[in-house]
Amino acid sequence: MAVVFERVAVIGVGLIGASIARAARAEGAAGEVALYDADEGVRARARALELGEVCDSAAAAAAGADLVILAVPVGAMAKALEAAAPGVKPGAIITDVGSVKGAVVQALRPLAPRDALLIPGHPIAGTEHSGPDAGFATLFKGRWHILTPLDDPRPEYAAGLDRLEAFWRALGANVERMDLARHDVVLAVTSHLPHLIAFNIVAMAEDLESVTESEVVKFSASGFRDFTRIAASDPTMWRDVFLNNREAVLEVLGRFSEDLAALQRAIRWGEGDALYDLFDRARRMRREVIEAGQDTPAPNWGREN
Amino acid sequence: MAVVFERVAVIGVGLIGASIARAARAEGAAGEVALYDADEGVRARARALELGEVCDSAAAAAAGADLVILAVPVGAMAKALEAAAPGVKPGAIITDVGSVKGAVVQALRPLAPRDALLIPGHPIAGTEHSGPDAGFATLFKGRWHILTPLDDPRPEYAAGLDRLEAFWRALGANVERMDLARHDVVLAVTSHLPHLIAFNIVAMAEDLESVTESEVVKFSASGFRDFTRIAASDPTMWRDVFLNNREAVLEVLGRFSEDLAALQRAIRWGEGDALYDLFDRARRMRREVIEAGQDTPAPNWGREN
Repeated sequence: MAVVFERVAVIGVGLIGASIARAARAEGAAGEVALYDADEGVRARARALELGEVCDSAAAAAAGADLVILAVPVGAMAKALEAAAPGVKPGAIITDVGSVKGAVVQALRPLAPRDALLIPGHPIAGTEHSGPDAGFATLFKGRWHILTPLDDPRPEYAAGLDRLEAFWRALGANVERMDLARHDVVLAVTSHLPHLIAFNIVAMAEDLESVTESEVVKFSASGFRDFTRIAASDPTMWRDVFLNNREAVLEVLGRFSEDLAALQRAIRWGEGDALYDLFDRARRMRREVIEAGQDTPAPNWGREN
Repeated sequence: MAVVFERVAVIGVGLIGASIARAARAEGAAGEVALYDADEGVRARARALELGEVCDSAAAAAAGADLVILAVPVGAMAKALEAAAPGVKPGAIITDVGSVKGAVVQALRPLAPRDALLIPGHPIAGTEHSGPDAGFATLFKGRWHILTPLDDPRPEYAAGLDRLEAFWRALGANVERMDLARHDVVLAVTSHLPHLIAFNIVAMAEDLESVTESEVVKFSASGFRDFTRIAASDPTMWRDVFLNNREAVLEVLGRFSEDLAALQRAIRWGEGDALYDLFDRARRMRREVIEAGQDTPAPNWGREN
């Protein structure tokens, strides 16, 4: 695979940052990878894992890089770019991996050097694990990467966008270009609300008086355990998502609650046909997800029971 | 493995019934397995799959059986036992696999022959697939099987209970004995509510005007896809669960909605610390589930991306 960027800087070495570093080197998409994390312990792990050249400042990592990737929680993006900016070279591409795009662009736009190209992005990939040790080279393979380009008329912006797309494709991702605001609404439905619901049910179960926590854990294989996996995701990352995509999340959450109230009423009044129709409809969506290659058809995800 | 029951009758050949037939024969826990399903097409499949002796009536399957297992949706239990009862021999054990126990016992108790032993049960095992083809012999291995014995003073009842426990252990399950009412409350939390939530979010996403169904499917790997798996479970089975465990489900659903409203408020008012604390708390539950051996620690359940 041809090198897409001679030097790539990764600011923030969590699951995503570490996976980018591994994937970029495994695929030969980057000539070299420089890394920085604000946490000294994480930098030490990144060194031990040999993820690339671990620098002692964001600016040092960014220095000379053709691509600077901000891989920190949404609420830490501004600080990360502020720290990296002094090192960013003219013409460099700055991108991010935040799950929210509108708020991130608002935060980053005033901070990006004027001769750099700010091209926000979001990989639809991850696991419930966090930190540099959780990263792996194949995380992005076959997954979508969404780019939400700004309205930037410079010809080099269009060229940079193509190059950034080539980089993500080299890492195995499928790339989709999307409007900022649309991204935030779509992700509120497909990602933010599901996580919120999972966090809520798991925290609720811990609080119940009627059922003990150990009973919940013991019989969790009847459905509950699946929610605990999603609810195990990084709390800082998710706090920032909800604080920064508030409007879209509140809107879809309102809709969810409204529908849930209708379902509650159907149960209370014993409306079997209404329940059946709704469950049957929900079932069809699974088929589409499988057909679109977005999940495995293996029962129980093929997990060993 | 020693034979626990000479002849086992399985009434209802879906995922669970077919798995019991396969497991009982694979483990040698049954001398022979007789099956019946009210659906002629399912009986034909059961024959083609060679699950055992497929009979043309429930009574014929039950005839001579030491153990009769009702493996039909909760709402169909009474009809299944009515049909099987003429064949049930004195001293036979009648059990079921329903996800609700209180309502099932109310339905079955008046129908069970007086010289039979009615011992309700519930395997905490399953996949999102349905029907005889979905069954497999290892479904119960390492999973819990809950027995909810009745208050029956006959000495042969206690002996039958031990024997039924031995049968499920032979199939690889861990067996727990529990009070009927407690079962229904615990399962409302660990199973019924999670499924209800999953059905609701998936049906809601299909109805949205702001985001298309194809967008939801395309980017479902960001969280949503996990809910589609749970929501793919058999709609008839789940309709019956909600109609028959109404009180416990409504109570825990009320609690869920209350907590969700508090979470909604925290998002609206930007209460980052409250969100973080709740997400962090939810995360801990995952560790307990893993430590209890109730789920795989592999990231993303080890599914291939």
